[in-house]
Amino acid sequence: MNALVLEAKGRLSLRDFPIHEGLGRHDVRVAIRCVGVCGSDVHYYRHGAIGPFVVREPMILGHEAAGVVLERGSAVTHLAVGDRVCMEPGVPDPHHRTTRLGLYNLDPGVRFWATPPVHGCLRPEVVHPAAFTFRLPDTVSFAEGAMVEPLAVGIHAANKARLRPGDVGVVLGAGPIGMVTALAALAGGCSRVFITDIQAPKLEIAASLGPITPVDVRCQKLAEVVLAATDGWGADVVFDAVGAPHSVQQALEVVCPGGCVVLVGMPGAPVPLDVVAAQVKEVRLESIFRYAHVFPRALALLGSRRIDVRPLLTDRYPFDASIAAFDYASAMRPTSVKVQIDL
Amino acid sequence: MNALVLEAKGRLSLRDFPIHEGLGRHDVRVAIRCVGVCGSDVHYYRHGAIGPFVVREPMILGHEAAGVVLERGSAVTHLAVGDRVCMEPGVPDPHHRTTRLGLYNLDPGVRFWATPPVHGCLRPEVVHPAAFTFRLPDTVSFAEGAMVEPLAVGIHAANKARLRPGDVGVVLGAGPIGMVTALAALAGGCSRVFITDIQAPKLEIAASLGPITPVDVRCQKLAEVVLAATDGWGADVVFDAVGAPHSVQQALEVVCPGGCVVLVGMPGAPVPLDVVAAQVKEVRLESIFRYAHVFPRALALLGSRRIDVRPLLTDRYPFDASIAAFDYASAMRPTSVKVQIDL
Amino acid sequence: MNALVLEAKGRLSLRDFPIHEGLGRHDVRVAIRCVGVCGSDVHYYRHGAIGPFVVREPMILGHEAAGVVLERGSAVTHLAVGDRVCMEPGVPDPHHRTTRLGLYNLDPGVRFWATPPVHGCLRPEVVHPAAFTFRLPDTVSFAEGAMVEPLAVGIHAANKARLRPGDVGVVLGAGPIGMVTALAALAGGCSRVFITDIQAPKLEIAASLGPITPVDVRCQKLAEVVLAATDGWGADVVFDAVGAPHSVQQALEVVCPGGCVVLVGMPGAPVPLDVVAAQVKEVRLESIFRYAHVFPRALALLGSRRIDVRPLLTDRYPFDASIAAFDYASAMRPTSVKVQIDL
Amino acid sequence: MNALVLEAKGRLSLRDFPIHEGLGRHDVRVAIRCVGVCGSDVHYYRHGAIGPFVVREPMILGHEAAGVVLERGSAVTHLAVGDRVCMEPGVPDPHHRTTRLGLYNLDPGVRFWATPPVHGCLRPEVVHPAAFTFRLPDTVSFAEGAMVEPLAVGIHAANKARLRPGDVGVVLGAGPIGMVTALAALAGGCSRVFITDIQAPKLEIAASLGPITPVDVRCQKLAEVVLAATDGWGADVVFDAVGAPHSVQQALEVVCPGGCVVLVGMPGAPVPLDVVAAQVKEVRLESIFRYAHVFPRALALLGSRRIDVRPLLTDRYPFDASIAAFDYASAMRPTSVKVQIDL
Repeated sequence: MNALVLEAKGRLSLRDFPIHEGLGRHDVRVAIRCVGVCGSDVHYYRHGAIGPFVVREPMILGHEAAGVVLERGSAVTHLAVGDRVCMEPGVPDPHHRTTRLGLYNLDPGVRFWATPPVHGCLRPEVVHPAAFTFRLPDTVSFAEGAMVEPLAVGIHAANKARLRPGDVGVVLGAGPIGMVTALAALAGGCSRVFITDIQAPKLEIAASLGPITPVDVRCQKLAEVVLAATDGWGADVVFDAVGAPHSVQQALEVVCPGGCVVLVGMPGAPVPLDVVAAQVKEVRLESIFRYAHVFPRALALLGSRRIDVRPLLTDRYPFDASIAAFDYASAMRPTSVKVQIDL
Repeated sequence: MNALVLEAKGRLSLRDFPIHEGLGRHDVRVAIRCVGVCGSDVHYYRHGAIGPFVVREPMILGHEAAGVVLERGSAVTHLAVGDRVCMEPGVPDPHHRTTRLGLYNLDPGVRFWATPPVHGCLRPEVVHPAAFTFRLPDTVSFAEGAMVEPLAVGIHAANKARLRPGDVGVVLGAGPIGMVTALAALAGGCSRVFITDIQAPKLEIAASLGPITPVDVRCQKLAEVVLAATDGWGADVVFDAVGAPHSVQQALEVVCPGGCVVLVGMPGAPVPLDVVAAQVKEVRLESIFRYAHVFPRALALLGSRRIDVRPLLTDRYPFDASIAAFDYASAMRPTSVKVQIDL
Repeated sequence: MNALVLEAKGRLSLRDFPIHEGLGRHDVRVAIRCVGVCGSDVHYYRHGAIGPFVVREPMILGHEAAGVVLERGSAVTHLAVGDRVCMEPGVPDPHHRTTRLGLYNLDPGVRFWATPPVHGCLRPEVVHPAAFTFRLPDTVSFAEGAMVEPLAVGIHAANKARLRPGDVGVVLGAGPIGMVTALAALAGGCSRVFITDIQAPKLEIAASLGPITPVDVRCQKLAEVVLAATDGWGADVVFDAVGAPHSVQQALEVVCPGGCVVLVGMPGAPVPLDVVAAQVKEVRLESIFRYAHVFPRALALLGSRRIDVRPLLTDRYPFDASIAAFDYASAMRPTSVKVQIDL
Repeated sequence: MNALVLEAKGRLSLRDFPIHEGLGRHDVRVAIRCVGVCGSDVHYYRHGAIGPFVVREPMILGHEAAGVVLERGSAVTHLAVGDRVCMEPGVPDPHHRTTRLGLYNLDPGVRFWATPPVHGCLRPEVVHPAAFTFRLPDTVSFAEGAMVEPLAVGIHAANKARLRPGDVGVVLGAGPIGMVTALAALAGGCSRVFITDIQAPKLEIAASLGPITPVDVRCQKLAEVVLAATDGWGADVVFDAVGAPHSVQQALEVVCPGGCVVLVGMPGAPVPLDVVAAQVKEVRLESIFRYAHVFPRALALLGSRRIDVRPLLTDRYPFDASIAAFDYASAMRPTSVKVQIDL
């Protein structure tokens, strides 16, 4: 079938790719309708690898997808042919101890779309386990459905934070993950969120999403802003969606006594942690890896419009312009949040 | 000063009442501007008692109040004369073990407005500890400020439930507490809420507040509605704002495996609990009593409009019509949610 | 094979029973060495049913078992032939939502030994999923291994209570489950435990197990004892291993503000719950059903002797005296805690 | 009165020191009977400062104390003259927000014995708030009572870890705090604990305290030992009582997926944190600062012998040999755990 293939570092082709997937009893076959371009896709394109994951063979990209059920396995009952769905891209080993404990995202053997050597979903159809395929509410479009994957990261982060209604949140970094984390923090109980960045257009978009206060850290001091707004107390929860030495340091500065820092961004190297600064406030640091059990929650929040991701869908391309979409996404323009490809 | 006095069961007067309160170092004097009428006020009016709390001497009613700081004690720094504020009506003993643990609402010696023998706030001014007095955000009116007290019950309930973003909530009972609980549940993470009642006008008001599905239990079966909407799974959290044998039973029926029931309403007598029905789903039952540490959270949520209580402010009276306000509130009309008195 | 068969209510036979179990890839075949007699086995024997579970066909009894691995399926790697093991008697559907969430004990379709129509383990060998079969530490005997099943209930209860080191615990009822719950409560952090009963010999055994204070409720008032020992504060956690109206009431009386009641015992009918009594202390009520993910924890605690169940192993019978064992167990002598059958 | 005074860095004298303390309504006057020497006392002695806390005036040392009530204020009811007690050395501002939330250890204005400019307790008597003075159970000696302060750190760490019964624990560092943390971890639910050090005598003492496996990291690889003992899974909780770059790294290596690292030790400078290593296991990192609400728990556990600190009381000196005690403690001999001074 026709697919967007990363042939090697820096080289994409949209070409026929032989891939034959049998339909198991617990699987569905899904026609892909929309795929979002993620920073990791772009990273593989530009660098050919993410950490220990190296693209050694041509690999189909894409892991944020929505589509329509074409066929279902004999044991599938909760989905029907024609259902509009989105898919969770990582499928764990059901026998692994993490999976049995309900922590399936921590299974080191998880098979995840577009993580070598597993092919992604930028192709007309996929076969996928029904247990990781979720029906879209009627009010949720394919484009929104393809946003569930990144949104799930934000919701998982909000979950780990154990937010309480009325919390003050801070999100460091207004990239796509920072933005969905801010939305999830509001939906999960925050009364307001402060978000930082160094690009004014991103901060403007973020500020349009709800009671979100943009802080341009080129010209404003985050600690001053947050402490002034909280009578000197600090934020209940800080989500670090940057993952850099300065962001971890900022997080400890602005979090309140007894507060929580959620480490969302993945630094390329160890970062200095001021342990004593954390201890004098007894900060809880939570670290997250993707998400687990979150897709139905994300869909419920989208379905009732408690979360609205539509302002983040800034750029659309047809499938046959996929390479242009990747080149555009690679440019990382400050006015672009999410690039999606329609099939 | 002029005050609304419950002289005895069934007998109110608006009359001069001698009350002289000295201003301590940690106190503020507040001019009252708005007081809400609570079900407990009405209950004292009609019955002269609530359980063991019996009105034996004339007592000023009212405990849901907002106003303006007139004077502050010498040790008060976080409030200024002229600040618009609302007050937490219960003041615990700072030396009690519950208070030191942060559970001050459980102090059995708490002094709570309009709970005999403590006078309430339906009078021109009160002296109150500054630690239990909270500045209103600019966007929050006195009327909304006077709603913080009942809203705090709903937020405390949502807090205890330990909601996670995307939860499905059910609120049993669409009285004032049920309504604020539904608002708190949404603000605290629920994607949607089902609310029950037997009065259509109340359900209509509730349905206008957000993604809240009204269920008229005279003609609809709650369990059918909730199970149909959740693929047979049930609701993550059920708030019982009725407090009756049938509502506790309903809660256990519609809660999901591993879910939570929060007992908000206070039954007049023990209710039958089907322990085995709870056990096969390992239901967690939380019980709440008023609230603790919630007023700042409520004000933050009102200030950013994550919660909007204005549709609940259905009826207003001037202070000199206070008795009429109580008589109206006693009639419990289905179209009335909250009666407030402006001073 | 030879098996202890409940032919019908009140009628046991030890006889050849045709049962042929194929060994799946993920299974092991285990030679049974020791089986404990549980109250539920005795209940089926005497009454032919427990609630909705009715014995309609002859059924092999027994679900507390330890043995030796005879054969393993091709996909089993963590167990070897000759390993000494014990088995978790309930096997859930891996595809059920509860199981995927890690709450597999709540799967309504779980297949549980000696719960009609599933046969139990009072027979020379069983085939069992390796994932529900656990190696015994060298220091743990078969008899102790067969105690893991009831002990798991106690540990699960202690888990749900979220004990903190230094808590004061109360266990209502000194039957086998009450005793293992007391042991689990101590191992899980309690500084001391009060245990109640109306049979002096049981209380004596309980008192010998550690810092456990027996309270004979025929002649002592539990609330007086507990309040006197805690400066009037109450117990942090109360485990109700009785499951009766008076025990639920007692639990609410002696639990401290902010404390927890764990409903372990299963009442035969709804019990009156004094909701207001729970609310004024904001009691958390947890209900449990069997256990999940607990067997390895139980074995670790037995292996390091943080828990010692040997004093509870009061009565032993050989397999060919199984019916005598059941008759003895049915007599429920106060000096008997656990009856076991050796194969 | 006679007191052990740190005159300046490196210079101690046991001399008369004028200190007059009035007895407030909520205070008690206590005759000191035993004081433990803490690493922080020794640090002030040798360096004249700990971080920002600099000894600028002569200061009495000592903050781990037990004694006898000599006199009580008029509002004190729970203590009597003659009561044997120990004291919590830090007294927070009751009006600070942290205190009202129950997080009083995080009050930045806390007054803590022997932290400049507050005098310590190495003197015949002190006046102390009754709320921070705790009666010793009859079975607990003054020497054990003076161990409650360091033990409280370990229990607070175990508390933050939210241990579950059967957890496997690791404690990095077998100094006094490491040892009490190991004891607290066992009392709080661990089935076994691994403890590391580079001094064989400390490891020997640790191994004598219970199911504690010593790991001499000069010749053993901790990760190999722990993974071998847990089927490759790792430890549920790791307590870092070292506070150094290598210990934080070790903690992340040996903790299991979904596990917890508690940062107990206070590094002198920021340490490198491998955030990605934490993320792929979704490690929760808790940081602690002293303790709150723990003294009664510690005393309960000592009173019932669930924790026995007596093997840690390796060295005793009379008050008039206090300087010798400090010189001995400064030598940090591997066979010495806790040096105490009897008055």
